[in-house]
Amino acid sequence: MMTERYEKGLEKLKELTLPDGENVTGHMDIGKGFKDVAPDLEKYVVEFAFGDIYARPGIDNKQKVLTTISALVAQGTPQIGMHVKTGLVVGLMPDEIVGCIMHLIPYVGFPRALNALKVAQEVFEEEGVSISKE
Amino acid sequence: MMTERYEKGLEKLKELTLPDGENVTGHMDIGKGFKDVAPDLEKYVVEFAFGDIYARPGIDNKQKVLTTISALVAQGTPQIGMHVKTGLVVGLMPDEIVGCIMHLIPYVGFPRALNALKVAQEVFEEEGVSISKE
Amino acid sequence: MMTERYEKGLEKLKELTLPDGENVTGHMDIGKGFKDVAPDLEKYVVEFAFGDIYARPGIDNKQKVLTTISALVAQGTPQIGMHVKTGLVVGLMPDEIVGCIMHLIPYVGFPRALNALKVAQEVFEEEGVSISKE
Amino acid sequence: MMTERYEKGLEKLKELTLPDGENVTGHMDIGKGFKDVAPDLEKYVVEFAFGDIYARPGIDNKQKVLTTISALVAQGTPQIGMHVKTGLVVGLMPDEIVGCIMHLIPYVGFPRALNALKVAQEVFEEEGVSISKE
Amino acid sequence: MMTERYEKGLEKLKELTLPDGENVTGHMDIGKGFKDVAPDLEKYVVEFAFGDIYARPGIDNKQKVLTTISALVAQGTPQIGMHVKTGLVVGLMPDEIVGCIMHLIPYVGFPRALNALKVAQEVFEEEGVSISKE
Amino acid sequence: MMTERYEKGLEKLKELTLPDGENVTGHMDIGKGFKDVAPDLEKYVVEFAFGDIYARPGIDNKQKVLTTISALVAQGTPQIGMHVKTGLVVGLMPDEIVGCIMHLIPYVGFPRALNALKVAQEVFEEEGVSISKE
Repeated sequence: MMTERYEKGLEKLKELTLPDGENVTGHMDIGKGFKDVAPDLEKYVVEFAFGDIYARPGIDNKQKVLTTISALVAQGTPQIGMHVKTGLVVGLMPDEIVGCIMHLIPYVGFPRALNALKVAQEVFEEEGVSISKE
Repeated sequence: MMTERYEKGLEKLKELTLPDGENVTGHMDIGKGFKDVAPDLEKYVVEFAFGDIYARPGIDNKQKVLTTISALVAQGTPQIGMHVKTGLVVGLMPDEIVGCIMHLIPYVGFPRALNALKVAQEVFEEEGVSISKE
Repeated sequence: MMTERYEKGLEKLKELTLPDGENVTGHMDIGKGFKDVAPDLEKYVVEFAFGDIYARPGIDNKQKVLTTISALVAQGTPQIGMHVKTGLVVGLMPDEIVGCIMHLIPYVGFPRALNALKVAQEVFEEEGVSISKE
Repeated sequence: MMTERYEKGLEKLKELTLPDGENVTGHMDIGKGFKDVAPDLEKYVVEFAFGDIYARPGIDNKQKVLTTISALVAQGTPQIGMHVKTGLVVGLMPDEIVGCIMHLIPYVGFPRALNALKVAQEVFEEEGVSISKE
Repeated sequence: MMTERYEKGLEKLKELTLPDGENVTGHMDIGKGFKDVAPDLEKYVVEFAFGDIYARPGIDNKQKVLTTISALVAQGTPQIGMHVKTGLVVGLMPDEIVGCIMHLIPYVGFPRALNALKVAQEVFEEEGVSISKE
Repeated sequence: MMTERYEKGLEKLKELTLPDGENVTGHMDIGKGFKDVAPDLEKYVVEFAFGDIYARPGIDNKQKVLTTISALVAQGTPQIGMHVKTGLVVGLMPDEIVGCIMHLIPYVGFPRALNALKVAQEVFEEEGVSISKE
């Protein structure tokens, strides 16, 4: 039986999905990939990460993705690509995603920013989008 | 003689300052505080951090502050307070600043988020602002 | 109205509390201290951190505290003291807490281990406990 | 000529090895792999990391492995697999290793915990072990 | 039109290049690789990282490379190889590069030091250099 | 009874001490401060950190201190002051210490570099030394 929070999490996850329902970002698969070792993980991801936190008011989805990417750039964790894709789904422009990563250079240094920029570049190419040309 | 980039940096720094010109955030004092050991530091802060990077298009000042706070929360560095103040100056609502920090719990864990929330709480009290009550 | 998870969290929190119910570790106050800026934080701490995760089977309370301390030593976050106290409450011996921190020297380096050892030393003194003498 | 500490380190290393003496965890090969660039490294690994620190009393081998894994999860360093294998050798149950990683979610965030869980999952598959089914 | 700082950066970059002008370290290609997503990045790398900072007096090129490698070892970022190559170009001996990484073991722990040593080992092999034999 | 490595460690520690034998850097007190909780710590600090690692050939004391400071700047750990003092004792010029910290800005970002610069500034003032004026 689905809890109210699980439903709320699923609803939020749909906002991070393409209009045709395609699960391009892979968020929905996180828990499923670990069913054999941590069958309860999916519940925490959907209920807590999406139903509780991602569904919080205060900042909108675009801000939430920029905020997430910024933290991952600072950590140097490898999940940045999934969140760059999520950003495109919720309507962030490539210029905003690049703007966020470039803005972090004075705070986290070039190496971590360049690693993130490389990942964003690959996602942009894969998705066929590009920054605006003036 | 001021370079063009230095002037651009100063101009950007003015946007991060109160309407009456009060330098509440302390950004302008960073370089000055180190004149005796690194007299060239001020130039890099104003020219590079503000004239080059902070003045980049792509994301607006509000997004830039949220992005900065997010990276510092993830790093656990102690400069968060200065950027929370900057956020209030550029028009971020306390709800947005709290929303950003709370959003990071699933990505950086409770300890780093709680440290940042404590700092934001202190700045809000100091500045006499509070989150919206529904 | 309390959810089932909130009750489960409170129950787990009681295990991390002295027999006379004294809340020495301060876990219960985390959310309360942020009521003005993030009124929903308490719910996440009690429901998710304690009701979901801390209440998970797999490892016992003693292992959970050692595991937590180890992660905080590696991160260099300042909440170690609260978890050293929690360790004493759930029955960890000072030798085990010191054993954990000393064991991490080859993995995280002396500086982070020494910072943690200092905190443990202060808690031990405050609580009037000491390592065993052979 | 072997020092006393080197012998103590070798003895401890044997405890982290399969009963048939098979060196599945690779600890013994660390130093050997760097003979050409740092011929003294092996000595430090065996003497200090194993002879001094791993041989310390206070916590047992199972606790030592959980403690190590926790620190590496928090750091995001890639050596986790070797220590998950070590855990199985010293008698940790897959449920305990998963329990440790899942327990860290509130402290280090989902991304670092998921990276570690993936590594544990691969080692479990490779070693033909699985978590208990209730 | 090249700014004075850009020229200063290029000049510094030449010092980090083989006598025959071969750009073995790849520093010059950093910005170029991101022309499509961040056309201004090259300017910041050449002007700020090399024209401003790398060209600063105080420490010489050898010290600068050791300093850089040390920070990257502590961070665990993957750009170490490029800086090990740079070290060889500016005249650091393999013994000095290994000496720097080994020296960091007590400060950052074995895992991060071993990751760096592996990278250095690969670069040494690739470049056909080795540590001195007494 | 002192081991050969312990003696080697003490000898190295003397090089990091003022000519009049004054233990300004506090290295010798590290282990002593923890005699009550970890009586064996002093042995590891003197034998391993100083007798094994600090006494290694490859790089000289000045390089070792710069290397150490760089790693601590990147980590953001608070022991930097002790190593800035050590640097002055082994003959590093204030310009070299500042040069090292400033050089790291593009690699670790301004916040961590500024924290370190502040510590160095305080040590310089305390020791009555200053950077060279051209």
